[in-house]
Amino acid sequence: MKAIVFDGRLGVQEVPRPERRGGEAILRVLEAGICNTDIEITRGYHQFCGTLGHEFVGIVEESPEPHWRGRRVVGEINCVCHQCDLCCRGLEKHCRNRTVLGILNRPGALAEHCMLPLENLHEVPDEISDDEAVFVEPLAAACEILEQVTVRPEDRLCIVGDGKLAQLIVQVLVASSRSITAIGKHEGKLKLMTRHGAHAMRADEVPGNLKDLSGTFDLVVEATGSPGGFQTALALVRPRGTLVMKSTYHDRLNFDAAPLVVNEVRVLGSRCGPFQTAIEKFRHHEVEVGPLITHRYPLAEGAVAFERAQENGVLKVLVMMDAADRRMRLSGKPPVQI
Amino acid sequence: MKAIVFDGRLGVQEVPRPERRGGEAILRVLEAGICNTDIEITRGYHQFCGTLGHEFVGIVEESPEPHWRGRRVVGEINCVCHQCDLCCRGLEKHCRNRTVLGILNRPGALAEHCMLPLENLHEVPDEISDDEAVFVEPLAAACEILEQVTVRPEDRLCIVGDGKLAQLIVQVLVASSRSITAIGKHEGKLKLMTRHGAHAMRADEVPGNLKDLSGTFDLVVEATGSPGGFQTALALVRPRGTLVMKSTYHDRLNFDAAPLVVNEVRVLGSRCGPFQTAIEKFRHHEVEVGPLITHRYPLAEGAVAFERAQENGVLKVLVMMDAADRRMRLSGKPPVQI
Repeated sequence: MKAIVFDGRLGVQEVPRPERRGGEAILRVLEAGICNTDIEITRGYHQFCGTLGHEFVGIVEESPEPHWRGRRVVGEINCVCHQCDLCCRGLEKHCRNRTVLGILNRPGALAEHCMLPLENLHEVPDEISDDEAVFVEPLAAACEILEQVTVRPEDRLCIVGDGKLAQLIVQVLVASSRSITAIGKHEGKLKLMTRHGAHAMRADEVPGNLKDLSGTFDLVVEATGSPGGFQTALALVRPRGTLVMKSTYHDRLNFDAAPLVVNEVRVLGSRCGPFQTAIEKFRHHEVEVGPLITHRYPLAEGAVAFERAQENGVLKVLVMMDAADRRMRLSGKPPVQI
Repeated sequence: MKAIVFDGRLGVQEVPRPERRGGEAILRVLEAGICNTDIEITRGYHQFCGTLGHEFVGIVEESPEPHWRGRRVVGEINCVCHQCDLCCRGLEKHCRNRTVLGILNRPGALAEHCMLPLENLHEVPDEISDDEAVFVEPLAAACEILEQVTVRPEDRLCIVGDGKLAQLIVQVLVASSRSITAIGKHEGKLKLMTRHGAHAMRADEVPGNLKDLSGTFDLVVEATGSPGGFQTALALVRPRGTLVMKSTYHDRLNFDAAPLVVNEVRVLGSRCGPFQTAIEKFRHHEVEVGPLITHRYPLAEGAVAFERAQENGVLKVLVMMDAADRRMRLSGKPPVQI
């Protein structure tokens, strides 16, 4: 089968189709998204080599439990042992022996097929589109913030970053607080955020306004996807406030730590989140992803898709598998828009 | 009066005695300690120029409320406005308009006299010695950890660092957990920690043991006083565990932030703490500071005292004012041991 592989170089390769084992299911991928983490992997992050991709929707093709076959699913990306100390204390997501789809010791979903344990799968309700389903994984990651932090309506919130994940975070948090400020670099991306009620500000306007904004936000979410945003985020959070770190990147973080200690800031690392919460948000039309999809490519053009995903102003790039093409043709929708 | 002043260079200078104003009291300092923060200030930390020192015990000489005169006191170091948004929400310690003794816009206590608002003072009970009283401020900072984090007896704790503050932290935390590991560089300092029940390990042994220790501690306290300890601390804390940052330093912190995000670590900056808790600990003989005092100098030798405080193997250096000298002579104790 074809897959987008990183092995020091990124490209579309012919790789063996996964062979089913144990409690795992083989999925025929319909569409998959390119995430900032995928891009960072191609820069050396996590030393991962293999098939990339962990945001997808697919159809169960083979399953140890026959009733799953033919169902449209999304899948949680952490595959766990249920036996280590962390699994036993309810921290399965942090399992010491885990594999992670397209990130750690498990081929990813930017391929015609992928494999995941049945227990990782969530059936996608009919009212959720394929496009929306691809966003369940990153939307769950955005929802994770509310699993970690209690937000009160009067809290002042700030999102540093205007990329794919930051866009979802704004849509998730806007329901929890009366005041959200987004700080980013791209006029168009910031404008999308204002549609959801955020007050948007360009990062290059921040230094001038920093005197007013410095130390004023109860919760700041750093979601720039690069080390540069952290120092700004730290300057914006109030003493005893919370800074959620969502970005993972290959480069090292370098900053003046004194304000963190002196202001007794709470920094929370934040990763994967609850899929069912994300699915419910799509069912209730609380999140809009259409405007976040800027490009689609067929799997064969995976390398071009990755290049495009790194360009200024681009948000989500979707990779459409042949199966998705066929579905779209059957439904009369355009197969691939570039 | 004489004072240890940093104005780009460190030295003992003749400076004006403070003049009493408003609700403030003039204190005759008996002894004062040299803290790592003082040393970092002489390296550029916080851009402070003026009289250093914020750990002291003194006698109230002038006070707007006469009954305070002659009392032996210690003093909280943050002098606050009670009017800004942070004061109004109970975060007085983080007051936006605060001055901080010997750190921010207020001359410090490494001098014959210093000045603090009456509301900052705590009378020292007779059963607490002058030496112990000087440690109330750093001990309160150690106690602050337990104000921020709930420690259960089964939690595995680790202190990274073996300096003055780390020593106090071990003594504070040892009552809360059955398992404390201290990681440091100095055999002698680590040995002091084992007296209080900590399991001690040299930092140069850690890399070899890191496979076993990595990601195992529920709570890690970084108290090395320099940026180097953070990456070790981050490697030691378990997923979803807590890393308390106690160190303030002039240099920038540079580390690989991915484990913080991926392991969803909670990092807590931690600064000043509750004086009354610290005073009660001394009253109940729960903390032993005698072995932590390695040198004493008269005020006139302040520059030498600072040099000594930065040497390997040295813990607390106390600066004894003339008043303390006189008290010691009257009580028959040796005035200054070097």
